[in-house]
Formats: sequence, C-alpha cells, structure tokens
Amino acid sequence: MLGKMLENVRKSRPIVHCITNYVTANDCANILLACGASPIMACDEGEVEDIASLCGGLVLNIGTLRQAAVPAMLKAGRTANALGIPVVFDPVGAGASRLRTATALELLRQVHFTVIRGNISEVRALARSGGAAQGVDAAPADRVTEETLPQAVTFVRGFARRTGAVVAVTGAIDLVSDGEKTCCIRNGCPELSRVTGTGCQLSALAGAFAAANPDHPLEAAAAAVCAMGLAGELAKARLTPPDGTGTFRNYLLDAVSNLTAEQLRQGANYEMR
Amino acid sequence: MLGKMLENVRKSRPIVHCITNYVTANDCANILLACGASPIMACDEGEVEDIASLCGGLVLNIGTLRQAAVPAMLKAGRTANALGIPVVFDPVGAGASRLRTATALELLRQVHFTVIRGNISEVRALARSGGAAQGVDAAPADRVTEETLPQAVTFVRGFARRTGAVVAVTGAIDLVSDGEKTCCIRNGCPELSRVTGTGCQLSALAGAFAAANPDHPLEAAAAAVCAMGLAGELAKARLTPPDGTGTFRNYLLDAVSNLTAEQLRQGANYEMR
Amino acid sequence: MLGKMLENVRKSRPIVHCITNYVTANDCANILLACGASPIMACDEGEVEDIASLCGGLVLNIGTLRQAAVPAMLKAGRTANALGIPVVFDPVGAGASRLRTATALELLRQVHFTVIRGNISEVRALARSGGAAQGVDAAPADRVTEETLPQAVTFVRGFARRTGAVVAVTGAIDLVSDGEKTCCIRNGCPELSRVTGTGCQLSALAGAFAAANPDHPLEAAAAAVCAMGLAGELAKARLTPPDGTGTFRNYLLDAVSNLTAEQLRQGANYEMR
Repeated sequence: MLGKMLENVRKSRPIVHCITNYVTANDCANILLACGASPIMACDEGEVEDIASLCGGLVLNIGTLRQAAVPAMLKAGRTANALGIPVVFDPVGAGASRLRTATALELLRQVHFTVIRGNISEVRALARSGGAAQGVDAAPADRVTEETLPQAVTFVRGFARRTGAVVAVTGAIDLVSDGEKTCCIRNGCPELSRVTGTGCQLSALAGAFAAANPDHPLEAAAAAVCAMGLAGELAKARLTPPDGTGTFRNYLLDAVSNLTAEQLRQGANYEMR
Repeated sequence: MLGKMLENVRKSRPIVHCITNYVTANDCANILLACGASPIMACDEGEVEDIASLCGGLVLNIGTLRQAAVPAMLKAGRTANALGIPVVFDPVGAGASRLRTATALELLRQVHFTVIRGNISEVRALARSGGAAQGVDAAPADRVTEETLPQAVTFVRGFARRTGAVVAVTGAIDLVSDGEKTCCIRNGCPELSRVTGTGCQLSALAGAFAAANPDHPLEAAAAAVCAMGLAGELAKARLTPPDGTGTFRNYLLDAVSNLTAEQLRQGANYEMR
Repeated sequence: MLGKMLENVRKSRPIVHCITNYVTANDCANILLACGASPIMACDEGEVEDIASLCGGLVLNIGTLRQAAVPAMLKAGRTANALGIPVVFDPVGAGASRLRTATALELLRQVHFTVIRGNISEVRALARSGGAAQGVDAAPADRVTEETLPQAVTFVRGFARRTGAVVAVTGAIDLVSDGEKTCCIRNGCPELSRVTGTGCQLSALAGAFAAANPDHPLEAAAAAVCAMGLAGELAKARLTPPDGTGTFRNYLLDAVSNLTAEQLRQGANYEMR
C-alpha cells in the first residue's frame, strides 16, 4: 500500500503550493522535486487563490512566521478547502511563542487540514496539553519512547479525532493516526535531527503524497513518514569518515530522488495499532 | 567568443545586485561566487538605489513575489537603467497568477531589460500569447522541441524585437535572441529540472555575464546559457549510483566554479539561426 | 582553552535565536546544529521577546535588511540585554548603503553586543573610519595583511573598547579583541570566501559559543573563529578534482559537525597581542 502511494506521486507529478519559512524553503522545493512533485512557493495574499487553485496540494508552515503572512495562509487554506485540495499543516514552533500558538490555533479554526505534521511538543501545544516548549525541537520530557508509546498513541488518536485530520507526530518513533487506526513507524535515524528542515521537508512530502492520493490520507501520510525515515537510513548507510551532516543532507535528497516503491515496501518499518 | 565572455567575468569580478526570491537566493549567491562574480542581495526600497549604483549588474526575479517588494524592484531597475547598468529579468511564474503576470508586465513597461530569461510558458505569458500556466515549470504543450523549433525561434525573435531585450527561453532546447540573430543551444540535461533554482541560477549567471560584457548582451546571455547547460552535463557525468539530485546539485556548483573558457569553447553546443 | 569552549557548546546545546537574512538562514541553521547548538529563526516583532527569552544566545544579522524588521531586532536585542543573554551582531553590508550603515549604528546605540563580527570594511564603516564599500565583501584597500597588521590590531582593539564588545574582524588574518587582548588568527583558506554565507555562519557559531561560555566572550569568539577557519582547512584537504565550491561547502559543514575539542586545540593557529 505504501509503495503504491509513492508510485502515484511519481505518476501524477502533483504541483504542491507551499507557504513556508525562508530557512528551509529551498530544501522543501528540492524534496518535492526529488519525490516527483513540482513545487510552487507563493505567499502574497494577492495571488494565493490563483496559485492554490492550480495545485494538487497545499502546505502551510509557520516557521519564521510573519503576522503579515497569516491572511495569505488563511486565504490559501480556505481556497484549497473549497476546491477539495488536500492541505498539510506544519505548526513549526507552536508552543515556543504566544504568537505561534495563537496563529496555529487560528489556522486550525478556519482551515480544515488533511494532515497535521509536527513534533510532539508542537502538537501538544496545539492540543493545549501543556507541552514544554524548547525552541523548534521537541522537549525531552515530551518525547515518544517505547515506555510512553501507549499514552502517546491515545493522545495522537484523540487529537486526530478532534481535528478531523490525519495527525503525524514525528520523533524517534513516529505516530500517524486518523482517529481510528494509528501507524507506529520506526524508520529514521538520529542524523535527521542534526540537519535543519527535515521536519519541514517531511511536511512538504506529505503534501505531495496527499495530493497524489486524495482518497487515502492516512496511508499517504504514513508513506511520506516512512519514505523520509527510510531515506535517512539509506543516507546514513552511505556515510564514511569524515562525512558529517553536510554530506548526510545531500545523501538524504539523493535517497528520496531514487527511492522506488519496492524499496519503500521492503524498508518501511511500521505496525498498526 | 563564448569563452571570452566567461574570461571577462573571472577577470572583472562584477558585483551583481539581486532582488530575488527566498527559495533560491542562496543558490543564486553561490553560483555568482562560483563564476567569479560577487553577489549582493538587497530588497529594501530604502537602499536599492545605493546598492544598484555600486554594482555592475542587476537581476530582478519575481519568484515568491511580494507586492511590497515591487517598488524596490522598479526603483532598482530605473536606477540601473539611468546608470547604464545591465539588468536581467526572470519572470518566475508569470502566467501562474494574475499578480505575477501583471507585475511582470509592469516591470517590462517601466524598466528596460538587457536580458529576459524564462521558460517558454513564462515568456509566452509575457507576450500574451496564451501559454498555459503550470506552476513555475513550462507547460508540456509549450515545450520547444525539434518539431516546434522554427515557430519557437520566430516567437522568441519577435519578442526580443518588441522588448529591445535579449530574450533567453530555456528548456530542452534553449533559444537566445536579440531580435536579429537567434542562438539555438543544445547543452544541458534533464537532471537540471529536478533541482530547484537552476533557472534562477541561470538568470543570476546571465547577470554576471552581462555585467562583464556590457557591449555583447547576446553573446553574454548565450555564454551563460551554454555554461549552465555544460555544467549540468559535467555534473551528470560524475554521478554514480546511488547518487541522486542532492549530489547532482553540488556537482553543478562544482562545475561552474571550475569551468574554464577552454571547456566552454569546446563544450558549447549551439547553432545560429 | 579554545577546546573547552567547543566542549561547552556540545554539552549545553544552547538554543540560539537568529534574526537573519534569507540568503544564508539555512546555512546558519545547519552550522548551529553541526556545532551542537539548536537554532530558532524568528523575526516577527510580535514574538521576538518570547523567543529571545527561551534562548541562550541571540544573533542579529542585517543581510537582506528590511526596514520593517528593525523594530523586531531592537526588541529582541533589548530583551536579551535585559535577561543577560549574549548577543552577536553581524553588520552585513554596513557601508554599502546609507540604510545599512544607519541601521547598524542604531542597533549599536540601543543594544549592547557581546560580539560584533564583520569584515574589515563593515567594521570600518561602523567606526566611521571611512572604509571603502564594495558590496558585502571587504574592499581590497582595507584588507588585513602582515604589513597592515599592527594598525589593524590598534583599530580593532580601539573599536572593542568604544563599544564594550568583543570585536571579531575576519579576513585573510582574523582579529578578535576585547579592547585589551587581541587574538590574531591564521586559520582558514581562500575557498571560504567563494561560498556564500561563511561569514554569517561564523556569526551564528559565535552566538553558540558565546551562549555556552557566557563568562568568556573573548575566548568564545576566538574559538568560533578558529573553528570555522580550521573547518575550512579540513574541508579543503578533502577536495580532489573536479571538486569545487559545491563540494567544499558540504565538507565545511561536515568538518564542523565532526570537530572535536582536541582537533581545535591542535589546529588553532593564533597568537595573542
């Protein structure tokens, strides 16, 4: 099933509209091209309706949030909703400032998201469950481990139910839930968190997968999460001293650009709960 | 002749002012440094006159267009025109939204461009010839192929005449025309379109080449197009499995940074029409 | 001592808040992660107080300056000052436009900087000593050479005294002074200036080092400068034809991500004056 999700991206080559931060916009564009999609970044309120309506998917990412950009995000989101275009939300840094949290909640109120992808601290902040903020990375106390997994599954499933979105919480163990089924994914490697933008890139990937598989949002999001994690594993396996995070970053893009449905089928490491 | 154009860039090390999008600004700065030029990115209306006047070239790129940035683009363009500094225009996404198209046309009205560099769909949108928009990539129906080449040459030559600019339309076959002569270039490789920003980078390169060769805009633009395509070929030739788009992207920059006039002379694949 | 500075970064993993330009924000985030710190980029006036107060360090960088962003820089700087959080200033392009110079001087008036890191032309512009502007790179006439070293040391030491900051002027020879002692550093290689953002990255590194070593700003800044230069040397040593600036850029990040305190101790090439 996950392999099929990737095949559909490569076949349909969806155009994915991103309103995203300037730190990782280049990485997001490159990962979209690598997976077979076509990126378009547009953030002016005066054009987001036009742009959203020619795309197969929309990704809203609040990294380096500017208040001036929020109306454009709302307008793009509502346009996509009206047209039935899948929308992915990446609440970067929710919980780290009142502005980010309030903006994220406002977006949740006005836009229906197909997929919400964040780390556990960000998603807890959205759920008002009191996650401790630690910049844009997950707080250690929040982390999903084998021990805290059952509670984490309950939390993510509950938040998916409340929002009507597929919720993807990524970390050492990734959880993707549609409110009924929850997919626990054990792909990936620690190196992914030593490169900026791997979270943003995953959200962009989720946008491409959701766009190419509009009737299967849970499987699409899970496939994107497995694909990113597996790409990390493949990239890591190529490293030899003195390679470091710079080389890893390139190999990651290499791996996504060459990833086959067969590799994804064989390499995906997940269980349904 | 094309080799000489590159030599002049490496010798004169022009400072090139870019008002460009945040997705590929880093790539543009790096390619300018790689070819021997010196980039300066400045987009505030309050400083673009100062900045433009200390530069040898100006590049205006409307990717991730913000309406608030248009007055700065106009001011920088008019300053460069008044000072006789070459100006390159990259109408990213023209045709994809009414805002982009209208802004591009406004820039064309108020600024005289030395070089206009875009894909065929963007340039058709500017010429109001009804090109089908497909995000920021060329629409398949518009593509320049061996079969459609004669009409495409006529179109590009005509648009160059109307605008008084050298027009560079890039794709599988690249066309560069000054309204009289048209250079058909067959350098490059498909991998170039799987990395974001190669179009923007080419426009930045064209800015450097035009700045270093102010009396030869056609040859300067053609040399930049050949250099980028040849760099793509050189990068591709270095790839071995499991290299992908990440590694290609680096090798592309490597190739531009090491490109010699001799390589360009020997590798340039073009004919004049 | 310098090795200890790096160890403290890797141990304390400081969160570093950057208000920086969109050209090199990605590079800055990646170098912060590579050295063991955690980046957060936030530039909206409505959140910089919240963000600055959860960080261990703040970096203000005026590349691609927008006037609209200056109030956020001032607010973040004052918040950090009030909380005793180290603040690094990178006056990118000071001297290249009246807006940049005036903004840099305004920031100097309202914010106390722990470290000011720039090239010699930028720092001369701040000191109103009439440095010739040449875009964002140092003007040849300003360059610090063995011959001009004594005067340059006097100048940097004097500017450090006037501002109460550690002043780090980087170029072929780097000078880091707290107004009393001046560290002359001869690490680095010419390749560093053929990649965009290595100056911005160094300022970000200085932010991490200052955050992790708040009682030793001179040693922290000197360690960051030596680390960046040494990383350049290590990256250069790995290059083989036809590697160029793209590969160098990745190896630079690799080198920072793998740099050990022991390597830094052995590789640092400096003298105190």
